[in-house]
Amino acid sequence: MVELSRRRAIEDVASELFRAHGYAATSVRDIARGLEIQGPSLYAHVTSKEDVLRAIVDRAATRFEAAAQAATHAPGLDPAAAMAALVDAHVRVITEDVGAAAVFVHEWRALGPNRRAAVLERRDAYERRFREVIDAGIAGGDFEMTDPALAATAVLSTLNGIPGWYRPEGRLPAGRIADHFVDLVLRMLQGAYR
Amino acid sequence: MVELSRRRAIEDVASELFRAHGYAATSVRDIARGLEIQGPSLYAHVTSKEDVLRAIVDRAATRFEAAAQAATHAPGLDPAAAMAALVDAHVRVITEDVGAAAVFVHEWRALGPNRRAAVLERRDAYERRFREVIDAGIAGGDFEMTDPALAATAVLSTLNGIPGWYRPEGRLPAGRIADHFVDLVLRMLQGAYR
Repeated sequence: MVELSRRRAIEDVASELFRAHGYAATSVRDIARGLEIQGPSLYAHVTSKEDVLRAIVDRAATRFEAAAQAATHAPGLDPAAAMAALVDAHVRVITEDVGAAAVFVHEWRALGPNRRAAVLERRDAYERRFREVIDAGIAGGDFEMTDPALAATAVLSTLNGIPGWYRPEGRLPAGRIADHFVDLVLRMLQGAYR
Repeated sequence: MVELSRRRAIEDVASELFRAHGYAATSVRDIARGLEIQGPSLYAHVTSKEDVLRAIVDRAATRFEAAAQAATHAPGLDPAAAMAALVDAHVRVITEDVGAAAVFVHEWRALGPNRRAAVLERRDAYERRFREVIDAGIAGGDFEMTDPALAATAVLSTLNGIPGWYRPEGRLPAGRIADHFVDLVLRMLQGAYR
């Protein structure tokens, strides 16, 4: 338990440093300093900076997956309601731990090839959840899309900009941001323009 | 002239390496190897890896600014036409040199604090161009938006996902991708949903 909470503290400090300065510019010594421990002591808990990055990215991916699963679990959701639930869940995972979300979105490319491939696979599976709802919406006449694959990618890109600017103390509360993005995404998928 | 084209070759090779492996995982030696020269010779042209990153980011920012300027230069564009022109220009800058665009979008955070601040300022000024068109569209009744600042940010996030997946040899030609994103963005700004 102590070990688990120490690992979590390391990941939280590292997330903020990676977010603020980038993975490349952050050293294990910086992480240790943020925890007010000596660099060598940190190596009792982590084997490398990449190990910390992998842990942050894996935990974020798991949170996104669990939230999406829960959001679309209710039976009988129509495609618009299912998309609204997916978008709301995604935005809330970001705003609840924006440091980890920022690392997940911006820094996962710094992982080594094997770990990158594993993350890419999870990202693809996650994107397929959005794609399936879009396909169902097109089939049922709820959505009008000429390229559903591009639309699924575009929806996630729209949402994944949020960690680049969100601050908990900012102008809009997290719930309002989620509502706005549900609106924007449903417009993208449903709206006929002039 | 020789010096300029050598600098450009360095930036092109570095863009591809940064895009493929991330800035953190790419060394000056990797860049030199990509150019088939010795590491020490590279230092005749560049002072550091960050110097190359800064050059790539600055050139990309200049290309985005020039394209946006040209796109909205025509007199009498209504807000929808102006937004379509801005989106089309942005997508084309990305697809014309996706390596540089990917570095601009994903790796600029690896710059040191002063250079990051300068890039942030240029990004903000660029985003204001989108914001001004959205404001004009709302004022004239063309766009329906409850939060124009959020909408401007969302539009750019949508577009800036493209370097994450675009490949010149991919399924859709660049012009079709630009058309799709003009559609998606105008839906976001104009579309009433059900």
